[in-house]
Amino acid sequence: MATDTLAINTIRTLAPDVVQKANSGHPGAPMGCAPMAHVLFSRFISANPQNPHWINRDRFVLSNGHGCVLQYVMLHLLGYDLSMEDLQSFRQVGSKTPGHPEANHGTPGIEVTTGPLGQGIASAVGLAIAEAHLAAEFNQPGFDLVDNYTYCILGDGCMQEGVQAEAASLAGHLQLGKLIALYDDNHIQIDGDTALGFTENVRLRYESYGWHVQFVENGDSDIAALTNAIEAAKKVTDKPSLIQVRTTIGYGSKNEGEEKVHGAPLGEPDIAQVKTKFGFSPDQKFNVPQQVYDFYGKVAAKGKDAEAQWNQLFDRYAAQFPQLAADFKRRLAKKLPDNIKDLLPTYKPSDPPVATRKLSETVLNKIAPQLPELIGGSADLTGSNLTRWKGAEDFQPPSTKLGSYKGRYIRFGVREHAMAAICNGISAYGALIPFGATFFNFISYALGAVRLSALSKHHVLYIMTHDSIGLGEDGPTHQPIETLACMRAMPNILNFRPADGNEVSGSYLVSLEAHDRPSVLILTRQNLPQLAGSSIEAVRKGAYVLEDAPNPSVILVATGSEVSLAVDTAAQLASENIAARVVSMPCWELFEEQSVEYQQSVFLDGVPVVSIEAMSTFGWQKWAHLTCGIDTFGASGPYKDLYKKFGLVPDVIAAKAKKLIAFYKDRKPENKIQRI
Amino acid sequence: MATDTLAINTIRTLAPDVVQKANSGHPGAPMGCAPMAHVLFSRFISANPQNPHWINRDRFVLSNGHGCVLQYVMLHLLGYDLSMEDLQSFRQVGSKTPGHPEANHGTPGIEVTTGPLGQGIASAVGLAIAEAHLAAEFNQPGFDLVDNYTYCILGDGCMQEGVQAEAASLAGHLQLGKLIALYDDNHIQIDGDTALGFTENVRLRYESYGWHVQFVENGDSDIAALTNAIEAAKKVTDKPSLIQVRTTIGYGSKNEGEEKVHGAPLGEPDIAQVKTKFGFSPDQKFNVPQQVYDFYGKVAAKGKDAEAQWNQLFDRYAAQFPQLAADFKRRLAKKLPDNIKDLLPTYKPSDPPVATRKLSETVLNKIAPQLPELIGGSADLTGSNLTRWKGAEDFQPPSTKLGSYKGRYIRFGVREHAMAAICNGISAYGALIPFGATFFNFISYALGAVRLSALSKHHVLYIMTHDSIGLGEDGPTHQPIETLACMRAMPNILNFRPADGNEVSGSYLVSLEAHDRPSVLILTRQNLPQLAGSSIEAVRKGAYVLEDAPNPSVILVATGSEVSLAVDTAAQLASENIAARVVSMPCWELFEEQSVEYQQSVFLDGVPVVSIEAMSTFGWQKWAHLTCGIDTFGASGPYKDLYKKFGLVPDVIAAKAKKLIAFYKDRKPENKIQRI
Ligand SMILES: [Ca+2]
Ligand SMILES: [Ca+2]
Repeated sequence: MATDTLAINTIRTLAPDVVQKANSGHPGAPMGCAPMAHVLFSRFISANPQNPHWINRDRFVLSNGHGCVLQYVMLHLLGYDLSMEDLQSFRQVGSKTPGHPEANHGTPGIEVTTGPLGQGIASAVGLAIAEAHLAAEFNQPGFDLVDNYTYCILGDGCMQEGVQAEAASLAGHLQLGKLIALYDDNHIQIDGDTALGFTENVRLRYESYGWHVQFVENGDSDIAALTNAIEAAKKVTDKPSLIQVRTTIGYGSKNEGEEKVHGAPLGEPDIAQVKTKFGFSPDQKFNVPQQVYDFYGKVAAKGKDAEAQWNQLFDRYAAQFPQLAADFKRRLAKKLPDNIKDLLPTYKPSDPPVATRKLSETVLNKIAPQLPELIGGSADLTGSNLTRWKGAEDFQPPSTKLGSYKGRYIRFGVREHAMAAICNGISAYGALIPFGATFFNFISYALGAVRLSALSKHHVLYIMTHDSIGLGEDGPTHQPIETLACMRAMPNILNFRPADGNEVSGSYLVSLEAHDRPSVLILTRQNLPQLAGSSIEAVRKGAYVLEDAPNPSVILVATGSEVSLAVDTAAQLASENIAARVVSMPCWELFEEQSVEYQQSVFLDGVPVVSIEAMSTFGWQKWAHLTCGIDTFGASGPYKDLYKKFGLVPDVIAAKAKKLIAFYKDRKPENKIQRI
Repeated sequence: MATDTLAINTIRTLAPDVVQKANSGHPGAPMGCAPMAHVLFSRFISANPQNPHWINRDRFVLSNGHGCVLQYVMLHLLGYDLSMEDLQSFRQVGSKTPGHPEANHGTPGIEVTTGPLGQGIASAVGLAIAEAHLAAEFNQPGFDLVDNYTYCILGDGCMQEGVQAEAASLAGHLQLGKLIALYDDNHIQIDGDTALGFTENVRLRYESYGWHVQFVENGDSDIAALTNAIEAAKKVTDKPSLIQVRTTIGYGSKNEGEEKVHGAPLGEPDIAQVKTKFGFSPDQKFNVPQQVYDFYGKVAAKGKDAEAQWNQLFDRYAAQFPQLAADFKRRLAKKLPDNIKDLLPTYKPSDPPVATRKLSETVLNKIAPQLPELIGGSADLTGSNLTRWKGAEDFQPPSTKLGSYKGRYIRFGVREHAMAAICNGISAYGALIPFGATFFNFISYALGAVRLSALSKHHVLYIMTHDSIGLGEDGPTHQPIETLACMRAMPNILNFRPADGNEVSGSYLVSLEAHDRPSVLILTRQNLPQLAGSSIEAVRKGAYVLEDAPNPSVILVATGSEVSLAVDTAAQLASENIAARVVSMPCWELFEEQSVEYQQSVFLDGVPVVSIEAMSTFGWQKWAHLTCGIDTFGASGPYKDLYKKFGLVPDVIAAKAKKLIAFYKDRKPENKIQRI
């Protein structure tokens, strides 16, 4: 048998074995996509299985992540640290082979997390943006230091998702010529034939986006056509390429071409049938002919050589461009420039009130020129989010004359979901810290991707302005209520709601230092006073005593714009001889990570706590005995009128605090910090 | 001046006055879209301003909702209950003219809430689906009872959103010939020229979806071209129509065609200039020439006549088809069939364990044939969500031969966000109760629209299966952690997580009865036992004592799949002579609406509470003194292994409960129900 055929047949028999052993998983896509995967990995993808972190490797993303057995099998055949035993523990607790590909969870060769449909192709756009940008930044004549392709396989499911549509439209605009996507067009989705609800002309749509589009009619066996199409795609350098590949899902199964083979094991009899059909012994499980290992071993050796050559290139580059090389290495090592903290502005209470979105702009103006790894932009709200720093250049294809690939300001357009998924891809590439911006309420449009930032430990900054009813007249459609509770309940993400300039600076500092989790910076539209007692360093603890009084009768804890409201309320209480402590809590998650001792030094035993936050009170019972917030939707009006309408004014809160103090006159408030 | 021109100039001068008075808002879109709005409302839209609820009215959706002044002005001119004073209190607290159009909040003529971009066009698809379905269901030869058009204006922002792309693709497949969208193509978005990031060929894209596409080159003044294009669109009955209309944003302003006019008042000098240009007195504010009122008065009179004729038609229809007419009226009155409750299955503890998704299917099989207003489907997870009842017909264009417009099962495709927005549109139409289904985790893809279901009080059911780590092998990409906390923090939505068959039946009953808010039914993949003590009626209270013991030492509160775990834990504690009460809490929101007395009868004073829920513990401190849950992401593996890994087994929880009891031996646990 020709090696190509043998290799493809190996994938097509090994994949169902893996799924069968787990008694769970998706055999159909691996069997249908085996030829395109084989062609990609054997002829095109340049990567070193022994060092999956080599920066100039070609990236591969399996956007139809449910077909991950395909990817695991390829990684195994190529000699990545993914053994036959790993394949045999597919979908078991603690294995390297989880149910969908998870980046940064111990499986080598997985670039971005996929499975939630559409995320892979959108993150692939981010990977291609990163490549284009770093190439423009670092390459020198004769030194193509950054010069890799991004390959992506996606299926019908991905093709129907809005996040895919957004990302593909932007990729076309950006002319990302080194992005090559193979569309596994098998006419089958979970509900059955795509005729049920997906009859659009995909090729025409991608043409409308400005992509280079091709069609391979027989993706089941026409290796030459697949090879030629990818070759042709590589030759088109000013457009991303889509290759529509007609395939048969579950090729070889007695149910090939039907939905049945999509998401359940084939069953032993069918597997035996498949093996016989492909010339394998029906009795042998997990069978990889040595010829196939040898073949892929040679491919791997080529990848190893490629890295070795690149390392030599880098050494010569370093000799000729020592500063660029040092910067490149620093950024790959995820080390911030030493002076970042010194660049951050600090404020005194006598400084004028400023909106935290504006304070964020000041920080960006200070740090962006010194932090070349920072790249990002807004979902068409630049003038509102204030995310474009002075002197920023747009990331644009040069032909637009609106910027260049050296530019670091990305015009995401009104594409929140793609923005977040693209940021994941940029972060996954390395050497860059991406950010995305929109109104805080519209993080809900992007949540599918933001969740993957957290799950995949991507270092992404989300700069979210217009954070509450404080945005005023735009009204309840734009005013977050449940949003912060949602973000706080999400694991592995830091949510900062700074109260003034010092806290904004501190929030940026901690966000930039947090290499293994994303951060959300939640900022006001309206002006806030500079507070006495705030500092950059205080933010590290998540919450701290901003203003104190001897033997306080009550503690007021607040975040962001409500901290100054807490200060005003404390002043009102003081005028009635009631001592109140004010706690600012810019980051709930960081406070939760502090020692019990520290936490108890903030929330004193025996003193009742009132929380103040202009959004859902959901969750605040963790720290507070009484919660002040908004548990309905907001309203449209000038923001001061809204604060009044919702009882978020010193008068009303002071009255509530007094009721709380009276309630606990004869009983001890429960200590919220104690660990049981 | 010709009346058309005068009317358009009136809109173009009144809109900036309204924005200026509010000192907030968006004058650019109203000025640019004035001609198309005038043509639509004066020549095409058939509606009766005196009865905005007339079921056969043409629907109008302003998808670029930030331009709502345009809509408010049109409603005012047409004589809807929206006075000049209402226009003058634009964006003020409590006004009928909030910052973005809000459905079901007191403004007549607003069909669906818009503002969050892309929602309007997607909900318009829902409105058109509702029309097509009801026409197929109710119309009879000679009786076109349901026969209206859905018109939508959308801008560049909407055109970039994924939810728009998803909905447009489905609309093309569904051949919704009575949907006509006008694309305000003004080349400007907030960041500046659309050349910055939106250079796709929109017309080609819509052609790829199967839409009928036209172009109007001069949308600033070519009334005839606009009229002809809409006429032509009406003639194409088997395709939705897109009319790309080239306009000048802020037409008439000295900054027309620039981003400056998009989102801020023009300022008095420019407004004076605009008025002079259009032949209006620069000193007169809020000026509507009587000729314009008279003109629109005649349009309104035509609309009134149309309704009167329709009422006569309906009377004749009722005489000839009394049962159909009675059903139509019942559904318009939002009255369920009397016997719905009797159809719901009940279960005994001796009945076998069943997954709640499967129990949901049983409910659907029982009620769908008796509840003709129920319409919906899944985002391509029919076989997993189990949402297609026996005998269901697909909602499909007849030419597909896969169903008909009479069908009530919608194949949404992998389009979660559009699914939710479409459900909003169907609900907004009336006479239908829509549902959408996917995995619970992927409600995060749809959150932008789900939030509007809640804000707009739409009666939508979200059937969300695979609700926790209980889904097993698919792993953390698919396992909700933060999702339920997010939904609970959202106002005006009911979240049901039923524990067994009786609770599933009860959850459906309350969801169907809840006319003014959406519900989420959160269901397991895995089997759950039928519990002793559960009932349909108990669900109404949100939480109830499922299993009790005299003088309990601890209360275990749980939801869904963890209720049987609580029962098992209580049994283990009982074997150690520790009395535990088990509380099932299928719906947090309903429990919050109960009297304090009832709440205190569930959570007894002096007895500590342990919460058990296989997801984020965020928020549970409201009811519980100790929380058991999962505050990290999940993992991939067989679900029983996962429950063990995360300590959600009787052993571990019983040990924690004992620690809690010991902790409170000498002190009283705080009463979580008391109101301060
Ligand atoms: Ca497919
Ligand atoms: Ca525009």
